[in-house]
Amino acid sequence: MRLSRYFLPVLKETPREAQIISHRYMLQAGMIKQASAGIYSWLPLGFKVLRKLENIVHEEQVRAGHIPMLMPTLQSADLWRESGRYDGYGEEMLRMKDRHGRDMLFSPTAEEMFTDVFRSHVSSYKDLPLTLYQIQWKFRDEVRPRFGVMRGREFLMKDGYNFDLTKEDALHAYNRHLVSYLRTYERMGLQAIPMRADSGPIGGDYTHEFLVLADTGESEVFYDSAVTDIKMGQRDIDFDDVAQCQAVMEEFTSLYARTDETHVPDEFAKVPEANKRTARGIEVGQIFYFGTTYSEPLGAVVDDGRGGQVPVHMGSHGIGVSRLLGAIIEASHDDKGIIWPEGVTPFHVGILNMRTGDDACDAASEDIYAKITAAGLEPLYDDRDERAGTKFGTMDMIGLPWRITVGPRGVKNGVVELTSRRTGESEELSPEVAIERIVEIYKGIA
Amino acid sequence: MRLSRYFLPVLKETPREAQIISHRYMLQAGMIKQASAGIYSWLPLGFKVLRKLENIVHEEQVRAGHIPMLMPTLQSADLWRESGRYDGYGEEMLRMKDRHGRDMLFSPTAEEMFTDVFRSHVSSYKDLPLTLYQIQWKFRDEVRPRFGVMRGREFLMKDGYNFDLTKEDALHAYNRHLVSYLRTYERMGLQAIPMRADSGPIGGDYTHEFLVLADTGESEVFYDSAVTDIKMGQRDIDFDDVAQCQAVMEEFTSLYARTDETHVPDEFAKVPEANKRTARGIEVGQIFYFGTTYSEPLGAVVDDGRGGQVPVHMGSHGIGVSRLLGAIIEASHDDKGIIWPEGVTPFHVGILNMRTGDDACDAASEDIYAKITAAGLEPLYDDRDERAGTKFGTMDMIGLPWRITVGPRGVKNGVVELTSRRTGESEELSPEVAIERIVEIYKGIA
Repeated sequence: MRLSRYFLPVLKETPREAQIISHRYMLQAGMIKQASAGIYSWLPLGFKVLRKLENIVHEEQVRAGHIPMLMPTLQSADLWRESGRYDGYGEEMLRMKDRHGRDMLFSPTAEEMFTDVFRSHVSSYKDLPLTLYQIQWKFRDEVRPRFGVMRGREFLMKDGYNFDLTKEDALHAYNRHLVSYLRTYERMGLQAIPMRADSGPIGGDYTHEFLVLADTGESEVFYDSAVTDIKMGQRDIDFDDVAQCQAVMEEFTSLYARTDETHVPDEFAKVPEANKRTARGIEVGQIFYFGTTYSEPLGAVVDDGRGGQVPVHMGSHGIGVSRLLGAIIEASHDDKGIIWPEGVTPFHVGILNMRTGDDACDAASEDIYAKITAAGLEPLYDDRDERAGTKFGTMDMIGLPWRITVGPRGVKNGVVELTSRRTGESEELSPEVAIERIVEIYKGIA
Repeated sequence: MRLSRYFLPVLKETPREAQIISHRYMLQAGMIKQASAGIYSWLPLGFKVLRKLENIVHEEQVRAGHIPMLMPTLQSADLWRESGRYDGYGEEMLRMKDRHGRDMLFSPTAEEMFTDVFRSHVSSYKDLPLTLYQIQWKFRDEVRPRFGVMRGREFLMKDGYNFDLTKEDALHAYNRHLVSYLRTYERMGLQAIPMRADSGPIGGDYTHEFLVLADTGESEVFYDSAVTDIKMGQRDIDFDDVAQCQAVMEEFTSLYARTDETHVPDEFAKVPEANKRTARGIEVGQIFYFGTTYSEPLGAVVDDGRGGQVPVHMGSHGIGVSRLLGAIIEASHDDKGIIWPEGVTPFHVGILNMRTGDDACDAASEDIYAKITAAGLEPLYDDRDERAGTKFGTMDMIGLPWRITVGPRGVKNGVVELTSRRTGESEELSPEVAIERIVEIYKGIA
C-alpha cells in the first residue's frame, strides 16, 4: 500500500480522553475513532489488525477440530426466558422491541442460541463430540465504558461451545480449548497465562482465565514466575490425543497462578520465595466447563446408545478479539508508539522514502516496494511529500516491526537502512539483502 | 473435512415455511436455521459460503483501490438527527435506548457514519480521491420478512462511500464501482445486469441496480437480450484509467435494461423485436452518485487548493452479501438441490465412499482426500456409515460442483468416477487423473 493512497489519519495531538496507553495509541495511530461511549469505528489500520487477529483465531480453532458458524447479533428474548437468564441478566443486556412489539436483545453471549441449534439438529451420541463456535459482535451495556476497546460496549468475541456425551469427554474439550488458546496467543506475540478463575454467572466448577501481564491490567494477579518460562513453541499437537492435551493443560496450570478473585494466600505462601510475583493482568479469554447447566433447562439431550436420553455436557470458551488489540499494545510499545509483533502487524514492513521526488530515491523505493509485494508480503510505502521527521514519527507511532529507509546518500552507495522497531538497531544493506531479510523474517508467519 | 466430523444437518423433510427454492434449499442443506422472523443463524455450510462471498467482495474492492474499515452496528441517533434522516426513516429503523436513556439505533446503512469519519479527519483536496467501505451486518425491520436470506431483517452488506473534489471525479468513482461490481458478480458465477434505477430515499441523479435474472425475482425487468452477451471476462482493468472505466460503463449500460420502476415503454419499443425480453430479476447491488446531499448538511468540506472550502461530492455503493447466497441458488439449482459455481462452492469436491468399512474403498478414499488437501483444495469426504442413496442425496442437495465416487468394483479396476453436478456426466478415471482434473478446474479460482 502506498501511504499517499491510504487513509491513515495519524493525530498530532495527544487525545485527552485516553487514560491508558493502548487507547491513546490506537487513537493517535488512526486505528479507531469513538462513535459513541464505548463504541468504536475501526479505521483502516485498526480493521486490518482486527481482521488478522480474527483469522488467527479461526485458523487455530479449525486446527483444533472446532467448526465455525455465525449467530445473528439480535436475538429474540424467548430463548433467554427459557434458560431463565432473561430477567437475571441485568442492565448490561441491551433490550429493545421490534416494530411488532416483540422483545429482542443484542446478544451479550450465546449459550442459549448454540444450545438451541444443537437440540434442533442433534439427537444421537453418534454425532458427538461436537464443538461449534463463532466470531461475532457482542454488546454489553457497561455503566462506565473506558480504556478504548479494552472495555467497550460493542466488542468482537470468539465464543465456542462444546457438546459431549460425558463429563470426561467434555473435560477433553476443555483441555483442547486451553491448548488451542495458548497457541493462538503465542502466534499473536502474547504470553497469556492460564489462571484458575471464578465461574461467575455462567456457573460450573472448571474455569480458567488467560491473563496478559501489563501494568494497566484490571486484575491483580499472583503467580510463580516459573510459569512464564513455559511456552507452546513449535510442539506438534494432536488435538484428538486426550493424554497429550491433558498433559499440556497440567504443565501450564500446575504452578500457582491466580487472580485476586481466586487467590489463596496459604497456597501462594508455598511458592518458592524467589519466584513469588504480584502483578497486574489483562483478561483476554476464559474457558468453562459447566456440565448440564444449559442442556437440562433447554432440553439438549441425546440418545446415549443404551436406550436412554441424557443431557449433554457442555462448556463455553471465549476470546475477546477486539480487546486483544488493546492487550497487545499494552504489552508491546514504547514512548514513541506501538510495536507490533510480526504475527499481527498490519503491514510487514515500512518503506520510508527520505526524499520523495528525487529520481534515484523514488526508483529505489519503488523497486523495493514491487519486490516485497511480489514475495507475497504487504509493505507500507511512505511516498508522501513530507518532511523526514513526519515520516519517522508516523512509522514509529503505527509500529510496523521493520522499516527500510531509502535516502539519497545511501542510494548513491547502493545501500538502504534496515531498522528494527523493537531494538532501534539499524544495518546498512544492499536493497537485495534487505528484502531477503524481510522475506526470511516472515517465513512461516505471513 | 470429513463429514463424520462436520456439522451438516441436512433435513429429510421439505420445510413448509419456504416459499422459494433458495430458502427451501438453504434450510434443507443445513446452511441456515431461522432464529426469529427474518433473522437467521448461519450453520457451518452457510457460513462457509458467506465467508467466501465476503472475501471475493473484499478482494475486488481492494483491487479497485477502495479501503476497508468497519463501523459499529449500533449508532447514536445524534448523527442521524444532524443529517435529517432520523425522524424520516420510519419503522424500518430499529431504535432503542441504552441504560442511560440515550437514543441508539441498529445501522440500516452508514452514509452518516462514513461522512462523519471523513469530516473528522480530512480537510484538504490533497487527500482525495478517497473511497472507504465496510462489510458489516445491518438491520432493517421489514414488516413482512420472507424468502429466507433474500429479504431478511438482519443482513450482511458491503457498503462503500466515495469522497471526491468534483462531480467529474465522483463519476469516475461511480464507474469504478460499476466495473468492480461486474467483476465481483462474475467471479461468483452470476450474471448481474446493471439497470437504470430509481434513487429512492438516498437521492441523486445517477444510480444503477444490478439484477440477476431469476423467476422468483421481486422486480419485473425489461431488457435488450444482447446485454446478456456482454461479459467482463479476463480483461485487464486499470481502475485509475478514467476513460477505460467510462468505456466499460457505457458498454454495459447503453443497451436498454430497466426495472419496472424506471421502465419507459417508448424507449423499450425501439429495441429490435427479436431482442425484447421481459423477465424477473433479483437486486444484488446498487450504486449511487448523490453529490453533496450528505456533505452539505454534515459539513464534509475540503480546502479546494484555491482558497475555498467546498463540500465533497459523494456516492454510495452497496452489495447485499448475505442476499447473494439466495440469488446464486435461485440462478443455479435443479430439482435435486443446489449447484454451486466453482468460485463460491463451500468445498471444492465431494469424495463419496460407497462402502465405508471396506479396506480398499477406505484406503482409496483416504488417499484421494489427502492428495486433494495437499494440493491446497478443500474436499468434503463422506466417510459416514450410511447407505449410498443417502450419500448421493446429501451431495446433490449441498451442490458441490464435482464429486469423486469411490466404489468397490472401480477400486478393483483402479478407477473412480468423476461427476459434474451441473451436467450429471460421469467419467471413469484413475484416481491420479481425477485429482489432476480437479486441480486443473480450480486453477486460478480457489
